[in-house]
Amino acid sequence: MKFCSECGGGIALRVPKGDDRDRFVCNDCDYVHYINPRVIVGCLPVYEDKVLLCKRAIEPRHGLWTLPAGFMENGETTEEGAARETWEEARARVSHQRLYRVFDVPYISQVYMFYLCSLDDGLFGVGPESLETALYTESEVPWDQIAFPVVEETLRAYFDDRRRDEFPMAVKAIRSRRPPA
Amino acid sequence: MKFCSECGGGIALRVPKGDDRDRFVCNDCDYVHYINPRVIVGCLPVYEDKVLLCKRAIEPRHGLWTLPAGFMENGETTEEGAARETWEEARARVSHQRLYRVFDVPYISQVYMFYLCSLDDGLFGVGPESLETALYTESEVPWDQIAFPVVEETLRAYFDDRRRDEFPMAVKAIRSRRPPA
Repeated sequence: MKFCSECGGGIALRVPKGDDRDRFVCNDCDYVHYINPRVIVGCLPVYEDKVLLCKRAIEPRHGLWTLPAGFMENGETTEEGAARETWEEARARVSHQRLYRVFDVPYISQVYMFYLCSLDDGLFGVGPESLETALYTESEVPWDQIAFPVVEETLRAYFDDRRRDEFPMAVKAIRSRRPPA
Repeated sequence: MKFCSECGGGIALRVPKGDDRDRFVCNDCDYVHYINPRVIVGCLPVYEDKVLLCKRAIEPRHGLWTLPAGFMENGETTEEGAARETWEEARARVSHQRLYRVFDVPYISQVYMFYLCSLDDGLFGVGPESLETALYTESEVPWDQIAFPVVEETLRAYFDDRRRDEFPMAVKAIRSRRPPA
């Protein structure tokens, strides 16, 4: 951030009066530009004994598999955002959404919220951000080609929980980047 | 938003290529300035049969009672943020945090996350954003002076749950502003 979005003035990193940490503050109009964590919302759509995955058509992790998810938009709920992303990436409608996993990823200032849900009628397609989409049983999941640690952890938790037929919500923190393979 | 924070150029509200909704885009450098929902994190600290509330020293709702909560900061987890706010506003240390209520408030693009927790040693004080702080039993809570609907709903849910001795997590959407009294 180099210029004030309100007046076009120059920006300095300093502690505003009454605050206790550095913020981007305008040298001319004193406007404080807060930068906040971002929320990623997604779904784990289930149909019979299978889960719906998307092969990424975009960076990062182009060509690897993920759950439908993306940045929450203004004016929607987390549940609506998760359903919207599932439509956008996999042309799938979902129901019976319940919050299943929250991941705090503080080193990139992100919060992930995954909803466990049913894939309506088993129908899905391929949205513009996906190369392909597919329903996989546990043994069919391409475990060595999963795009993100939060996705792998959510999938493994789901298949474990299904054996117990209990699906408790959990909050987890991811403290460091995945080590290189 | 009037000026590009990257190059100082003018901003237009338009749909970027490959997107499906209006964004603030720079006319000069094409930088897309996303505006995302914000996360508010807080605690419901419990000590014996009492809950810890804070009387607000700041607007909005100056002089009304609330749970310790505030905007999540970059570089922290939701749990850490909730504990930090509880220290800042009520000089209280907490433990045994568990996610208890998520509120989507889409008309102001906010997500609230309240953690149920224990107030360590029953100790607390008054932070700079509070006029006073206090432990209240259910009948002592100043129910007609609660600052925000999400706070009242969280408190009522807690006292109901305590009668059952079960504290399930729930996600709720607040769809409209509280009607005027």
